[in-house]
Amino acid sequence: MTDKRTGTAMNTIIAGRKPVIEALKAGTKIERIVFLTGVQGRVINDIRSLAERKRVPVSHANKQQFRELATNATTQGVVALVPTRRFLDVDSILEVPEKRAEKGFLLLLDEIEDPHNLGALIRTAECAGVHGVVVPKHHAAPVTTTAVKAAAGATEHMALGEVTNLVNFIEQLKSREYWIVGLDIGAEKVYTEIDYAMPVALIVGNEGRGIRRLVREHCDHIVSIPVYGKVDSLNASVAGGLVMYEVARQRRKAAVPQD
Amino acid sequence: MTDKRTGTAMNTIIAGRKPVIEALKAGTKIERIVFLTGVQGRVINDIRSLAERKRVPVSHANKQQFRELATNATTQGVVALVPTRRFLDVDSILEVPEKRAEKGFLLLLDEIEDPHNLGALIRTAECAGVHGVVVPKHHAAPVTTTAVKAAAGATEHMALGEVTNLVNFIEQLKSREYWIVGLDIGAEKVYTEIDYAMPVALIVGNEGRGIRRLVREHCDHIVSIPVYGKVDSLNASVAGGLVMYEVARQRRKAAVPQD
Repeated sequence: MTDKRTGTAMNTIIAGRKPVIEALKAGTKIERIVFLTGVQGRVINDIRSLAERKRVPVSHANKQQFRELATNATTQGVVALVPTRRFLDVDSILEVPEKRAEKGFLLLLDEIEDPHNLGALIRTAECAGVHGVVVPKHHAAPVTTTAVKAAAGATEHMALGEVTNLVNFIEQLKSREYWIVGLDIGAEKVYTEIDYAMPVALIVGNEGRGIRRLVREHCDHIVSIPVYGKVDSLNASVAGGLVMYEVARQRRKAAVPQD
Repeated sequence: MTDKRTGTAMNTIIAGRKPVIEALKAGTKIERIVFLTGVQGRVINDIRSLAERKRVPVSHANKQQFRELATNATTQGVVALVPTRRFLDVDSILEVPEKRAEKGFLLLLDEIEDPHNLGALIRTAECAGVHGVVVPKHHAAPVTTTAVKAAAGATEHMALGEVTNLVNFIEQLKSREYWIVGLDIGAEKVYTEIDYAMPVALIVGNEGRGIRRLVREHCDHIVSIPVYGKVDSLNASVAGGLVMYEVARQRRKAAVPQD
């Protein structure tokens, strides 16, 4: 039912009570532990107290959300998210365009929740020539197996970064002459009206709520995708893809001689 | 975890042994009955023989595929797909652009399998001003609850058609001066190089295999989306979205005075 070209899976999930508690005891770097809402038992309590002691964040997910984290696995109501691929530091990401002698082109994801969207956005970014994808540490869907699968191998190639404070990072980008372009429904400016010749950081916001207000206020441009029907917005990964390819189209057009 | 703007669900699924057999007995118009692979029992056998008698097609799905059809329902290993929204006949779809005094703009989906992609493609089509989406009867993912959810209400507004033979329909479109544009990775022509001023039918193929060879041979143009990274292709719904919005962009640009 899914793309046959999907690359090898990146195991970011430890599933099951025993495996999770063993990983905690072993000091494995765990990003977060997720419990299925309502799950109970002695081992679950042990996991909770051990996680607290080790300062590993815990959260809860309903059945559907939980299934997204761990399909086809015996989870016993608990999984640990383990980053097998380390996020790059911000400086390393900013070096990518410099090394390629290209104008910077970054994708910032502000509170994207759906792992299908996260994966598709990373995949599209990799295809469109984006130099790096940056997510805020506490406001992003984890890069789960669903996301990795939707990314079709792109998570292996794309520079992925994580920042504690997205607004601070935006200010840092501005000091490096990046233009910050936020995508939001209802914005008067259409995404094709902007000149993307300068270094650009494109921000795609949450599927339902869009970009957070504070982040929005730090954008140089807010653009929208025109819609001609009755539905008011596009899927986040399609919308993001349109703007990324508009940047790619403009830059490619500028780079090749016109006839 | 999903888009908060999702519209009301369209119930296309009858789930469970008793409900399915009752629907069959009542003569409800059933598109297809799907069994979870390996499911057994007396009632299952009854459903099989009744379906055969009523000439309702049956198929099998593995656990993951089955879950896509019927989330959060007690299925007992069997569901019936009931079209609550009737497909329009082809002539009604061809009338849509005529009524709006616009050049035709259709989306043809050849063997799209993933219901997320199906839904996102219908949603994008509705937003991009596509007049109708047409699928081949025996080579399409059913419009399941997952697809309807991913479409965020667009299935309610978009003219959806079903044809027995896609190639015959393509020939019919050609006789009405439509240009047939197939999307395929590896095609030399880039999607932005085509002039979409004429009536256009865009064909998006299967996520893994692309457009079927025979369908491909009936296209006037085969176009691709350039990729600048290491991953060789985009997600089908993102790729389809890019071409649909390129058509929209060109037509809009032609319609408004340039400064």
